[in-house]
Amino acid sequence: MKYSGLYVKTQKETPSGEDSRNAELLIKAGFIRKEVAGAYSFLPLGLRVLRKIENIVREEMNKIGAMEILMPALASKEHWSQTNRWDNMGCLYKFETASGTEVALAPTHEETVTPLVQQFARSWKDFPLCTYQIQTKFRNEPRAKSGLLRGREFLMKDAYSFHTSQKDFERYYEIQKEAYTKIYERLGMGGLTHIVAASGGDFSKHSHEFQTECVTGEDTVFFSKKRKLYLNKEIAESKAPEVSYKAKEELPMKEVEGKGVIGVEDLCKFLGVVEEQTTKTLFFITDSGEFIAASVRGNYSINELKLKEVVGCKSLELASEEKVKEMTGAEIGYAGILNLPKEIKVFMDESMDNRLNFEMGANKTNYHTININWGRDLPKPKKFYDIKVAQEGDFDPETNEKYEVFRAIEVGNIFPLSTKFSDAFNFRYIDEGGKEQPIIMGCYGIGISRIMGALAEIFYDDKGLKWPKPVSPFQVYLAAIGRDDKVYKEAETLYEELNKAGIEVLYDDRQDKKIGPGQKFADHELLGIPYRIVMSENTNKEGVVELVNRETGKIEKIKRKDVIEYLKK
Amino acid sequence: MKYSGLYVKTQKETPSGEDSRNAELLIKAGFIRKEVAGAYSFLPLGLRVLRKIENIVREEMNKIGAMEILMPALASKEHWSQTNRWDNMGCLYKFETASGTEVALAPTHEETVTPLVQQFARSWKDFPLCTYQIQTKFRNEPRAKSGLLRGREFLMKDAYSFHTSQKDFERYYEIQKEAYTKIYERLGMGGLTHIVAASGGDFSKHSHEFQTECVTGEDTVFFSKKRKLYLNKEIAESKAPEVSYKAKEELPMKEVEGKGVIGVEDLCKFLGVVEEQTTKTLFFITDSGEFIAASVRGNYSINELKLKEVVGCKSLELASEEKVKEMTGAEIGYAGILNLPKEIKVFMDESMDNRLNFEMGANKTNYHTININWGRDLPKPKKFYDIKVAQEGDFDPETNEKYEVFRAIEVGNIFPLSTKFSDAFNFRYIDEGGKEQPIIMGCYGIGISRIMGALAEIFYDDKGLKWPKPVSPFQVYLAAIGRDDKVYKEAETLYEELNKAGIEVLYDDRQDKKIGPGQKFADHELLGIPYRIVMSENTNKEGVVELVNRETGKIEKIKRKDVIEYLKK
Repeated sequence: MKYSGLYVKTQKETPSGEDSRNAELLIKAGFIRKEVAGAYSFLPLGLRVLRKIENIVREEMNKIGAMEILMPALASKEHWSQTNRWDNMGCLYKFETASGTEVALAPTHEETVTPLVQQFARSWKDFPLCTYQIQTKFRNEPRAKSGLLRGREFLMKDAYSFHTSQKDFERYYEIQKEAYTKIYERLGMGGLTHIVAASGGDFSKHSHEFQTECVTGEDTVFFSKKRKLYLNKEIAESKAPEVSYKAKEELPMKEVEGKGVIGVEDLCKFLGVVEEQTTKTLFFITDSGEFIAASVRGNYSINELKLKEVVGCKSLELASEEKVKEMTGAEIGYAGILNLPKEIKVFMDESMDNRLNFEMGANKTNYHTININWGRDLPKPKKFYDIKVAQEGDFDPETNEKYEVFRAIEVGNIFPLSTKFSDAFNFRYIDEGGKEQPIIMGCYGIGISRIMGALAEIFYDDKGLKWPKPVSPFQVYLAAIGRDDKVYKEAETLYEELNKAGIEVLYDDRQDKKIGPGQKFADHELLGIPYRIVMSENTNKEGVVELVNRETGKIEKIKRKDVIEYLKK
Repeated sequence: MKYSGLYVKTQKETPSGEDSRNAELLIKAGFIRKEVAGAYSFLPLGLRVLRKIENIVREEMNKIGAMEILMPALASKEHWSQTNRWDNMGCLYKFETASGTEVALAPTHEETVTPLVQQFARSWKDFPLCTYQIQTKFRNEPRAKSGLLRGREFLMKDAYSFHTSQKDFERYYEIQKEAYTKIYERLGMGGLTHIVAASGGDFSKHSHEFQTECVTGEDTVFFSKKRKLYLNKEIAESKAPEVSYKAKEELPMKEVEGKGVIGVEDLCKFLGVVEEQTTKTLFFITDSGEFIAASVRGNYSINELKLKEVVGCKSLELASEEKVKEMTGAEIGYAGILNLPKEIKVFMDESMDNRLNFEMGANKTNYHTININWGRDLPKPKKFYDIKVAQEGDFDPETNEKYEVFRAIEVGNIFPLSTKFSDAFNFRYIDEGGKEQPIIMGCYGIGISRIMGALAEIFYDDKGLKWPKPVSPFQVYLAAIGRDDKVYKEAETLYEELNKAGIEVLYDDRQDKKIGPGQKFADHELLGIPYRIVMSENTNKEGVVELVNRETGKIEKIKRKDVIEYLKK
């Protein structure tokens, strides 16, 4: 492609209204353009990147025998009601068609693909099978943000597999895992991308995310070196480090009036304690209506996923102010687990243990209790639990090794669905004996446009983007510089040679006095193409070209006649 | 691909709820599946066809230098308001995002692409340029119908060009026309597809449609042989044939009471006249508020496009019952142009002329007047016009030759947009002298999924589909038949040879007692793949294969060793 034929131009100014590095870089380089919040146009070079990502994903899906289809975005209310998600999925765009039927724009396609496959697959002989699409999804995000990372319209690969047994599903799940691993390797982000165990939502205990290390990532990953295990913060088991404050003897317990002192920082100042001495207690109502208390060391938060598991309930809701007052006698902020009626179940995190002289709400409005000590003031529970959100500094309780913690961008996920959707559609297969049996499903997603955003978020420097070769819109940026027509003629020849050799090249053929070498080099750096070839009067004289490596910055002179050979390596 | 790996199955039953041949055939063959009214899934074989069409269109767009991009479906209210189409385009799906912004799903992208190009192109040097996308569109059709021909969600190629002069636009318009012609040729529908002049809507006098002959088509095309000109019914100039009733002398004019006799058929019976003797008069209000009458021979309809042009107004609205009564003294159905107040302008179609003893509403409720004759009862107007909807049997007024008339499916259109959109966004370019100048635009659409529907609507027989080779999901359907394992082994070898030779083959490897040759052959015919190769114990013995041509039905025996060579021809 020639630069002169490309109507899109780079821009010097940082675009306004963007909150992410990827959008800023991609917009400046002319790869994308924001149309409405959360929806971008892919401009000629951006579309080239998008298609390369898409094709790598497609090839790996085809290799494992997944069959490509294309389902519509318009989705039926009937199907979404059958799975109970019509009313419960907040991100559904819903509206009426001219004939009065309610429809939604699908943010995921279980409700479409399950009845689809059900139409064709009935016998055990038809299984296992996997089908996928690369399709535009819509998601009514409360706040569109982070450029291509969290949009309201985005391109996604979603695959769905169907199995006659849990065992077969598990076998296939590993095949998908391997295909995903290959995909990230081929995309040039393999070294930074890890398989991370995450919550399984309503469907199963665990799912797996593919998380790419990135300081601006939304997610936090905990790595247990000894177990070679990556865990999403939301499920990482954790053991708190020992408290750092020194206390050797128990001080007398005391109630302190502190009206309006609620925030942890203020409280510490007011009471003269450190945060680790404080205690955070939250009260919940379980799905069976039980009122429970859960406490953690003050510098932690309660992890509801963990708490649900410990309690053994399906859902939890924070108790209302009135309910807390009724049950504890104190307002929220002063309610704690001290002197609670015995019928209220209390769940304490292990971070509560091994402390002296700790603080709690006094269960008396406006009062805090300090210098509480186990046994003397509060009986030690029979069991401490792990019900906290893990944080940096925590230990893997299984290995007693401190976690390595890093921020990451989720670039894919694979998810056991069990029989959640097959049951909803009464989709069963007939086994060899003629009997109906449940079908086990899995789903496997990769955000194609999100990956483009993630790559931009990771591979860049202060001059612009740095695409990995497999997804770069071109392999070579060919710049002819100066005013000598001969240089442009020679560059034109090299341009044709490169095209013939199948090396993708963007030829900056601008022969405009106003556009000097500096501008051309800056454009190359902004665009992030792996190689820049510079041709000038001087290089022509020497019979060489200048080859600049965008990644390393290294500049080499290569004999003009060896260029193609060199680049083909 | 092997049939055994394809989870989708053909079905014998004609699907219910479809009103078109294309949907019936495509669903039976397992190419598509209806998800909601007007939105279909493309199953593995259907997606292959869709992608082939898409790629042919893409290649021809790239050849003429159009730059591919991808714009989002979500579209901004602000932009659609700037062109006055937010409220005036009935087919817009509109809804709110979670942050309270109103958005629409774009059925066309002028409102997105114009500000997009405006961001980058400013100088005369940046023009002309053309950009396009292949993208999913949404259209809130009042009634989704005709399978892939009129859906609510469909895949479309839409291109937009930008020019510094009308002359340059016209030059480029011809280039697009040629590209389109090549596209239909390559798709195998060239011989049936014609460039048809159509209305230019609000933007210009004419646009051009590409119409493919098809008896089930929605459109009617008039062909003027001498002028080598195809015209859409909506704009075809026409001259009515002479009336067929014999009348030599003028009979006395008479008012006949006929309360409630309004329909043309009833009227003719009641009055003892033929339809050609009757007169149809409609009353309109122009955009400047004028009340006018327009009349045609009773077996014609009024063409409002033509009438607008004749009247010289921008819009017309049918006058209300009250208004008609007020102005003519009679109710609609009995109102005519006899004895109308002089200040009411009357426009008469040329089909009114050359009649004796014709009928009209008496301008007296419940009365009709018959045996009206020019001069004696009604002054001949200074000028007759052509304000009727052309119909079969009409003549081209320029050549006096009877039109050839056929039904057709619109498979593409190209459209001069003039400055309609550039003006709305105040998009102007700077000429060589530094002055701002208007930008002329054109747009060029092809419905990718619609073409798939059109191909199915045209190429079929009672056994199923008959894909043209360039879009067929496979070139060869390889069927191994019988129970001899050797046959399947040999077929497997041929399957690999075909793949190696780059000949796309679907190998029906089903080795199931229940699936006999008949079923396999029927499936091949339903799928519509150009060639079927049959291998059996007999053909193996003879060292041949049986080659069946789906198009001609011809069966040949080809030496096994010559098959690849034969197919490569």
